[in-house]
Order: sequence, then structure tokens, then C-alpha cells
Amino acid sequence: MNLLAEKEAENLRLVLVAARNPLNIGAAARAMSNFGFSRLRVVNSYHLSFREARSAVGAPTLLQEAEEFSTVAEAVSDCGLVVGTMAGTSRKLEHPLHRLDEAGGLIRSRLAGERVALLFGSEKRGLSNEDLSYCHWLMRIPTREEHSSMNLGQAVAICLYELIRTQNAVAIPEKARASGATLERMTEALLDALKETGYTKPGTESATEKKARRLVCRMDLSEADAELWTGMLAKMKHGKPRIARLRDRRERTC
Amino acid sequence: MNLLAEKEAENLRLVLVAARNPLNIGAAARAMSNFGFSRLRVVNSYHLSFREARSAVGAPTLLQEAEEFSTVAEAVSDCGLVVGTMAGTSRKLEHPLHRLDEAGGLIRSRLAGERVALLFGSEKRGLSNEDLSYCHWLMRIPTREEHSSMNLGQAVAICLYELIRTQNAVAIPEKARASGATLERMTEALLDALKETGYTKPGTESATEKKARRLVCRMDLSEADAELWTGMLAKMKHGKPRIARLRDRRERTC
Repeated sequence: MNLLAEKEAENLRLVLVAARNPLNIGAAARAMSNFGFSRLRVVNSYHLSFREARSAVGAPTLLQEAEEFSTVAEAVSDCGLVVGTMAGTSRKLEHPLHRLDEAGGLIRSRLAGERVALLFGSEKRGLSNEDLSYCHWLMRIPTREEHSSMNLGQAVAICLYELIRTQNAVAIPEKARASGATLERMTEALLDALKETGYTKPGTESATEKKARRLVCRMDLSEADAELWTGMLAKMKHGKPRIARLRDRRERTC
Repeated sequence: MNLLAEKEAENLRLVLVAARNPLNIGAAARAMSNFGFSRLRVVNSYHLSFREARSAVGAPTLLQEAEEFSTVAEAVSDCGLVVGTMAGTSRKLEHPLHRLDEAGGLIRSRLAGERVALLFGSEKRGLSNEDLSYCHWLMRIPTREEHSSMNLGQAVAICLYELIRTQNAVAIPEKARASGATLERMTEALLDALKETGYTKPGTESATEKKARRLVCRMDLSEADAELWTGMLAKMKHGKPRIARLRDRRERTC
């Protein structure tokens, strides 16, 4: 079996969010190295000592070169696709959810053309709703419902195996998807517009923000379309007074 | 996705041979429980303390009920199929070797009717030649050649995932893969041809030999195809002088 093409493997960003056990971070690094991936990102890790984790057998350099971020937003800002992983809990889902064996192909078809972030949450709680709001869609490893909580290092290994296993038969590159930074600008423009137009009620700002971000992610926009949207939303924000002015003027002239 | 039927899952015996780290035994138990398997066997473990391993999160009972054996022979004596797992070392193989994604289907097609033992070796050395002599065939997780040694708990998790992922729809056995011996004959034929044709420079014989053997292994040939190749390579070796002879003869007759 051929592993992924160099460019595909290079485009994957494995993002561990709030991992608590440095041994799990090391184990993730080892599995990445086994399967030919090298770009590890760590967000808000509880242990600064993870860089020396003995469990990164054969992959100490990968671990040394891991990038650290303080927020998920920064960690995915250069990625065109952000995929969250989750155990099969009963959490109410706002995102499309794919089984890992379907998800592998979807991710592969994007890796040739752009950066893809694969997010794993903490050992105890997985990804938070805030983390999930940066994801375009979610995937889960099919496990028994009665025992769906996997060890983080094992979950990472299985997901990466699925990526290299999956045939990338359909190598038709899609139009480049919008980067995380572009989507964030669009989300801000949307939030501004919602606030200006009175959609956001006082006290609901935080809930609205997550809702808006998820909405933007789900749209799975191209870079150009996201920029188009951002421009349109900026207009909407400032547009109302102008329309009101026009209406007032018309009323005066009629 | 449905996990395996109860009877299929019940028929699997996961056998850890000479595992040194109790945390890995616990991690294997946890992955078994995640994917619906319950029958763990431990052969000649260095640590009798494994039954309390904290890493068996959610699977303490499974670990408590693990069966202990002092030899591989005893541990697989009630199994109709014995499959060994290995990292992609250059060890000379006497067994058919299947890539994990092929092997999953082969194992699934047997689990409905009989017990299947899946053997994992120690963290340091994998399965010994003695252990391998009990195996009908081997399988390996496709990893980078430069870093094929996986963490035991992660390797177990990936193999079990493949078992539950694989559709058992097509029970058509693939053409048998070439045995290690056949591949070795093919490698020798290739090396002879390379030497005869001047590809192998003096002093590089050893490097070329390893390169050639890896190349042949990577092709993942069927027995028949490997024999076909061996025949063709033998021709290449002897072909050149013969062509030269023919040319000489033609030149003489013209």
C-alpha cells in the first residue's frame, strides 16, 4: 500500500485541543510518524512538559516541532476544512456527522488541494461546543454505544489509519475552500450585521456567536464565495440606515 | 454502522504474547471493549500485575477475565485460524503476508464459523519465529517503512477497528499472496539481473539487495504473479548475451 502522497500528508494538521496527558500527545505523535504525517498542533495543553513525552517513540522531532496555540481559532486559521472528532454521545448535534470510514474519503479528496485540520478534544470531555463551532463537520469512530469513550492515542491512530487506507479514487480537486481566517471574518461580519439589525437580543450574544459560526462552517464555502458573503454582510450592516434614508426621501417626494 | 454479530465477536481471541507493559495490556482491553470484543488471552506476560492496569478504562472486567497461558501452542489450540501481526521489518517471511485492509475481510469470513486467534508480539521484538510458526498467515498495518514500529495498544485498536469496519459481504477469497520464499526467489532473480546488466555498482551490493527486497515486498504480488516476474527476470539476466549472440550471428550471416 502506498501511504499518502507527500503533499497530501503535508497538508494535514492534527490538532489536539486541551489534551491533559502528555503520554497521549506523545502517542499521537508516534502514530502520525507511523503513517507519514508530521504537522502536530497543540491548543491550550495542560502540560507544558509534553515535548519530552517518552511515548513518542521514534517521533521525538515531530513532537519538538509541534506548534502551540492558545485558541482553536488560531490553530485552524490557515485550514480550508476543519473536521471535529467525537465519541458517540447523545450530545445534540448542530453539525453533519460522518462515520469515520465515510469521512476518510471526504478528507482525502480535500488534502490534495488545501490544508485540513483534524481536531481531537480532551480525554475527559472531548471537544467543547465552542471548539465544535469552528468545525465544518464531525466524524466518529463506530464503537459500542455502551462504551464509546476511546483512549486519545488510540483514537488518533485509528483516524490516521483510515486516512491512509482510504482510496482517493476521486481526485477531482474541488474549488479551494475558504480558510479559517476568511470564515472568521465572515462570521464577524455576520455577527455585526445581526447585532446592528437587532437580531441579537441582549444576553444572547454568546449563543448567537456559536450558532453563527456553525452556520458559516456548515456552508462549506469557497474562498471567493466567503469573501463575497463578507462583503455582502458588511453592506447589510451599514445598509439599513441608508434604506431608511431612501424611504424617508421617497416618502417626502411622494 | 453495526458492529460484529455477537457470535463473530465472541469467536475472536486476542492473544498478547510476552507483552511487557501492563498499560499496553490494559489499553488493548479498552479497545476490545470499545469495539465489542471480550476474549483476551495473555501468554507469558512479564507482569502479573496487568489485571489492575488503569489504562483499561471502562473494561476492568474484561481484563479480570483474561485467560493466561504459558505457551502460544496452548493459547491457540482451540482456534481454527491463527493470524500473526507484524511491523514491516525486513525479517525473512515464510508466511503469506496480508495488508490489514485485506486481512480484515479474510478474518471476518472465518469468524462466523470458528474461533480465530489474532496474535500480537512483545513491544520490543514483536512475535518470535517460534510464535510465527503457529500462524497460518500474517498481517501488517501499512505504515512508513522508516517508522513501522507501532505502540502495541494503538496497533491492537487499529486491527480491531478494521475488523468491525470491513464488510463481510464478499466472502470471495483473494488470490493467495506470494509466500516469503517465492518473493525471495524473485528478489534473487532481480538482483542477478541488476548485477548482470551493470545496475549494481561494485561496493553497493548490500544496499541494492535491501532496496530490491523492499521493492519486491512493496509490490504485494500474488504467488502466480511473483513466479511470472521471477521467470521474466531470469530471462533478462540471460537475455542480453543471447541477443548479443544472435546479433553476432546475424552479422556473420549478412
